[in-house]
Amino acid sequence: MPNTPIADTPSPPYYAAIFPSQLNEENTADYGDTAARMMKLAAAQPGFLGVETARTNELGLTVSYWESREAIAAWKANAEHQAAQTRGRAEWYADYRLRVTKVEREVAP
Amino acid sequence: MPNTPIADTPSPPYYAAIFPSQLNEENTADYGDTAARMMKLAAAQPGFLGVETARTNELGLTVSYWESREAIAAWKANAEHQAAQTRGRAEWYADYRLRVTKVEREVAP
Repeated sequence: MPNTPIADTPSPPYYAAIFPSQLNEENTADYGDTAARMMKLAAAQPGFLGVETARTNELGLTVSYWESREAIAAWKANAEHQAAQTRGRAEWYADYRLRVTKVEREVAP
Repeated sequence: MPNTPIADTPSPPYYAAIFPSQLNEENTADYGDTAARMMKLAAAQPGFLGVETARTNELGLTVSYWESREAIAAWKANAEHQAAQTRGRAEWYADYRLRVTKVEREVAP
């Protein structure tokens, strides 16, 4: 996946999709390319505000930021993303969660 | 920092503190030990539900989960945590954000 800096989000309220995942030990050949493609596709969606992602061997953690719940729902429903989600469930992920949250407060240095 | 699996969170609503950070290139000698100690201390706080963390060279991403906004505020006010926050701002972090969010919906496989 591409390196990402800290997302330059606006003043709250806005929305965050928290996506922790654990990969299977095998069958992850296409995963990296698809994940990079999804990052690019998400960034082109209406209402996208930014994304942060990091991965260790044990855990991947991606948080994407959105203007509204509707923008998250539209991204979930995107056809190419739907195909990637289907492959993710069937082939790549040993486990994951998707948590949809409302950002109420933000503190910066 | 210790490895963390996916957090075993309850049914929403609950709260998440999203903490992306970028470390300075120098002066980070004590950072790892302090971060590990903070993970342990957070886990002993009232209202703590779990934590997920991953770090690349570019970005650290830690999400902690809590029963209430008050539990997050109490953790922020913890004396040993306050001392670590002060060192973090002065020595370790080139940049960070703290985003307090309400988890409205969760999807699992």
